[in-house]
Amino acid sequence: MSLKFDLITTDGNARRGTVHTAHGDFQTPAFMAVGTAATVKALTMDQVAATGTQVILGNTYHLMMRPGGELVEQMGGLHKFSGWHGPILTDSGGFQVMSLSSLTKMKEEGVEFTSHIDGGIKHFLTPEKSVQIQHQLDSNITMVLDECLHLPAPREKVEKNVEMVTRWAKRSREAFVDRDGYGIFGIVQGADFKDLREKSAHELTEIGFDGYAVGGLAVGEPQDVMFDMIAHTTPFLPTDKPRYLMGVGTPLDILGAVERGIDMFDCVMPTRAGRTAQAFTRHGTLNLRNAKHRDDSAPLDDKCGCPACKLSRAYIHHLTKCNEILGATLLTQHNLWFYQDLMRDVRTAIEQGRFAEFKKEFIENYTNKD
Amino acid sequence: MSLKFDLITTDGNARRGTVHTAHGDFQTPAFMAVGTAATVKALTMDQVAATGTQVILGNTYHLMMRPGGELVEQMGGLHKFSGWHGPILTDSGGFQVMSLSSLTKMKEEGVEFTSHIDGGIKHFLTPEKSVQIQHQLDSNITMVLDECLHLPAPREKVEKNVEMVTRWAKRSREAFVDRDGYGIFGIVQGADFKDLREKSAHELTEIGFDGYAVGGLAVGEPQDVMFDMIAHTTPFLPTDKPRYLMGVGTPLDILGAVERGIDMFDCVMPTRAGRTAQAFTRHGTLNLRNAKHRDDSAPLDDKCGCPACKLSRAYIHHLTKCNEILGATLLTQHNLWFYQDLMRDVRTAIEQGRFAEFKKEFIENYTNKD
Repeated sequence: MSLKFDLITTDGNARRGTVHTAHGDFQTPAFMAVGTAATVKALTMDQVAATGTQVILGNTYHLMMRPGGELVEQMGGLHKFSGWHGPILTDSGGFQVMSLSSLTKMKEEGVEFTSHIDGGIKHFLTPEKSVQIQHQLDSNITMVLDECLHLPAPREKVEKNVEMVTRWAKRSREAFVDRDGYGIFGIVQGADFKDLREKSAHELTEIGFDGYAVGGLAVGEPQDVMFDMIAHTTPFLPTDKPRYLMGVGTPLDILGAVERGIDMFDCVMPTRAGRTAQAFTRHGTLNLRNAKHRDDSAPLDDKCGCPACKLSRAYIHHLTKCNEILGATLLTQHNLWFYQDLMRDVRTAIEQGRFAEFKKEFIENYTNKD
Repeated sequence: MSLKFDLITTDGNARRGTVHTAHGDFQTPAFMAVGTAATVKALTMDQVAATGTQVILGNTYHLMMRPGGELVEQMGGLHKFSGWHGPILTDSGGFQVMSLSSLTKMKEEGVEFTSHIDGGIKHFLTPEKSVQIQHQLDSNITMVLDECLHLPAPREKVEKNVEMVTRWAKRSREAFVDRDGYGIFGIVQGADFKDLREKSAHELTEIGFDGYAVGGLAVGEPQDVMFDMIAHTTPFLPTDKPRYLMGVGTPLDILGAVERGIDMFDCVMPTRAGRTAQAFTRHGTLNLRNAKHRDDSAPLDDKCGCPACKLSRAYIHHLTKCNEILGATLLTQHNLWFYQDLMRDVRTAIEQGRFAEFKKEFIENYTNKD
C-alpha cells in the first residue's frame, strides 16, 4: 500500500495532516467537492480549483452507468476525462445502489439492482467489480463496497451487517492493485452500537487499509448520536492513517467531527444548495430567492473573496428569480469557497493549537444572525 | 453626440474600425454577445471576457420587466450590477414586444402590450420611455424604439412603417441625454423595398445619430434578400459612423454582411446553441448529443484555444447526455470563442487587404465536412 499520510500535528483530538497521492497532495482536515458524474455540478474544474478545493469525489454508481468505467479508462481515466488533475476519491457505488436503485437484493456475492438511469436493466455489483471500476476510473482513493443500514436498526441485523462488511472489505482489499500514490479505504459500520463499531474497526484494521471511513452515519440520526459514534470509533483506528466521515455535512457537523479526530469529508450540501438559491455565509445561510434581497447591494458575505461576492445580493436574487444558470454557478462556487475557507481556518487553528477557540467563535457568528 | 468611431481602413466595402465608449473601446467588425437579462446565459462575465468578447448587448424588454430599470439604476447601472465593465449596447425593447408579448397595439404614441413574464399586466412603451430605461441601465449605446415588420409586407404598410420609424427616431433622439462616451443609434427600416430603405436612411441621417442599424432583416427572408437590402442601404449611410446589423447571424451571414459594409452584429445563435448541445467549428456545426461522439477523444475544434477544447468530445457528449450544466457552460463559451476568433480573423484580413480571400477559405472549410 502506498498512499502516504503525514500527521503534522494535533490539537486535542483534532488532527492536521497531508495526504500524498499520485496526482498531488491534499491537506487535512479536507473537504472534498462532490463531482458525481465527472463534473462538480455547475462549475468548470478551474472554478472548482479557485475555491481552494484540493480533492474531489466521483460517484462510481453514476459513472458506471454513464459513461461507464470502460469508456473513462479508454479516455485516460477520470483526471484526463474531466480535466481535474488533482487527487480524486471515488466511493464504491454501494450507497447509491441503496438510495437510488430499486429491486435491490443483497446477496453474499454482491448486490443486485436496477438503476434509475437505464431503467429496467439488471446490474450486479460485487466488491471486486466495484474495485475494478474504480481502477478503470484511475481513482487515487478507492472505497470498499459496503452495505449501509438505515438507523435505527435492530442489533441482530447490525451484527450480520458488520460481519458481511468485513468479508466484503477483505475481498475488496484483495482485488485492489497496489500502485504508488493510490490507496484503498475500509469503512467501519456498526450503526449506533458502540461494541459493534469497535469490532468493525478492529477487523478492518487487521485487514489493513490506507485509511478508514466511519460509515453509516449522517443517515438521519440526531447530531449527538453521530458525534457519539465518531468519538467511539476513532480511538480504535490507527493514528497514522486518514479518517473519513462520508457524506458530512453542515459546517457545524464538520467542526464537531474534526474535534473528534476526523480528517476528510464530502457532502453535496454546498453544491446542491447553490442550485437551489441557498448561500452559506459566516452568519448562517441565506435564501437568495427571498424578496428582501431584491435591492440589497451588499455581497453574500463581506469576508468572502469569491467572484460572486464582488457582486450584490440584488444581482444574485435577480439571477435566481430568472432561473439563470449563472445564479447556480455563482452560488455553487461561493458555497464551495465558503467550505474551503472554513477548512483552511480549521487547519490553521489546529496548527496554532486554538481549535476549540476557533470553533466557539465560528459557531457564535454562524448561529447569531443579526 | 459623443460616441467616437474611428474608421481605420477598408477593403472593398469591408470596414475595420474602433468604437470608443465611456467603458472602453471595441474593435469592429464586432460581434456582441447577447446578455439578455444582465447575464450572458451560462457564463460568468470573466468567461465571456476570455472569449475575446469586447461588447455585450442587454435586452431592455427583459430588464424593464426584471429587475426593472429603476433597480438597475439604484444598483449603479448595468455594468456594476452585472460585473461586465466593458461597453454595453441595449436594444429598445421593441423587437421583444413584437415577438414575446401578446395583445400588442401599435399607436402613434407608443406600443401597448402585456408581457409573457408578469402575465396580464398592461405596459406602454414609448420612444421616450425606452430611451429613459436605457439611461437607467447606463447603456453605452442606446437604440431607438422602432416597429419591426414581418417580411414580406405590402408596400403601403411598409411606407407607413418607415414614416412612423422616422417620427419615433426623432422623439428618441430628443429624449436622449448626450454624455461623453455614450451614443444613440437610429434603425433603418423599409423591408425589401430599396427606395424605402434609401428614404429611411436619408431621414435618419438627417436627424443625426452616432450609428445606424439596418433593421427588419434576419426575420425569415432568404439570405440573398438580406444581403441585397444591406448592399442597398449602406451606401446611404455616413461612412464615419458604425453600422449595425441586428440579430445576425450565422458565420456565413456575418461574412456576407461585413463584405457589404456592416460593422456590428449580435445574435443569440452561439449562446443558445451552447445550451442545446450544438458546437460551431471551423468545419461546420456538431451535435454533441450524437452517439458518434461517445468515444471521440478529439476536441471540438483542434484550432480552438478555449477551455472546452482542452477536453474531449466524449466528455462534452457525456455532459450533454447527463444534462449537466457544465455542458451548456463549456459549449456556450466555446461557441462565443469561435465567433470571436472569426471576428478577429475578419479584422486581420481587412487590415491585410485580403478579406475576400479569407472569406473564401473560411467558407470552404466550413461547408466541406470531412
